[in-house]
This record gives sequence, structure tokens and C-alpha cells, in this order.
Amino acid sequence: MAEAGLNELRLTARIAELLPLRRTPAGVPVAGCVLTHESRQRESGLDRDVSVELQAVAVGDLASVLANAGPGVNVTVTGFLAAKSLRSRAPVLHLNKIEFVEGN
Amino acid sequence: MAEAGLNELRLTARIAELLPLRRTPAGVPVAGCVLTHESRQRESGLDRDVSVELQAVAVGDLASVLANAGPGVNVTVTGFLAAKSLRSRAPVLHLNKIEFVEGN
Repeated sequence: MAEAGLNELRLTARIAELLPLRRTPAGVPVAGCVLTHESRQRESGLDRDVSVELQAVAVGDLASVLANAGPGVNVTVTGFLAAKSLRSRAPVLHLNKIEFVEGN
Repeated sequence: MAEAGLNELRLTARIAELLPLRRTPAGVPVAGCVLTHESRQRESGLDRDVSVELQAVAVGDLASVLANAGPGVNVTVTGFLAAKSLRSRAPVLHLNKIEFVEGN
């Protein structure tokens, strides 16, 4: 029963790996990448080091933005998490916004 | 090189599975759960069905809040993603806020 639920991740990250631009059967461009993130976050009143690695994907116009970014670039992204496929339930970040961090 | 980067997920979800409350060696309570999420999200101008399953953990005072919630409960949560461990890089949602959705 799908509804317009809340599902929004905002993340500063580094494009660690960039997969080749591909197209869906309908011709829509899709770009995939691996994002790595390191920061300090507050949990239960204490600061802790956090690192995480996420697969991410950009569809349509955003796909070429991502594909042109190149690996090693620092970004701030917004998107939603969805299971990779019916077989792999690993979460993949679907990007809705990519901002390039100054000083890249 | 850790800094105060952005890492925030906001998610409406259902507590699908609740793990027994445990304590760290320092005596801090830790509760774990599996969250399931279903919604419609907009991607590249099109609405699509989204489902995702995430492991989540609550530490300290929030651990007992989660442990008392029980499975099947609908929540809106905020937290950050961190790799599960050095060996398993699967992302785990560390909860900073749990709101119970009315009508549970």
C-alpha cells in the first residue's frame, strides 16, 4: 500500500567510483556511483566518528550531471532510499539533487 | 579525516522486527530493529513506488523507547547512516528521533 511517505537522505559525500552511463530500455539515461561519507555525528549525547558507503543512482537529466562529475569529487546530495532490486534488498540512494562542494 | 558533515535520513517506516535490548560493555542500552518503508517518490519527474528495508539502532534513552514500541508500530524517524561494522559495510540507521504515528 504505497503512499507519499517521508524518505529523504541528505548527505555530504565523495564520489568514490563512477559506473558507465547506461540507458533503460525506454532510452532514459541512468548513472550509478558509489558514495563514501565520513563525518562526526552526535548519538545519545556523544560525538562519534561515522563512515558509510552507499550505492547511488541518478536518472534522466541528473544522470549526465553525475556522469560528468568524475570520481573523487565532493558533493552534497539529496535523495531517497530504495531496495536495489527484488533479489537484492540492499538500499540504493536515488539522487534528486547533486550540489558540487566548492574547493573540488 | 572526520568533520561535521551532513548525514540525515528522515523516514516514515514500520517496525517490522525488534531485537532484544542489549547493553554495551559500558552498560549503555542498545536496541536494534528492522524498519520497512513503502511510499511513492518522485524521480526525474515521474512518481514511482519505493520499498526499502533498513536495519536501525537506538542507543541510550532512545533504546528503551524503541524496545517498548513493539513490532508492527508505524513511526517517523530521523537519524544518520553508518556502516554496520568494519567487516560488514551494510548501512545501519542510527536513530536520533522516533515519533509514533497516530492511529497505531
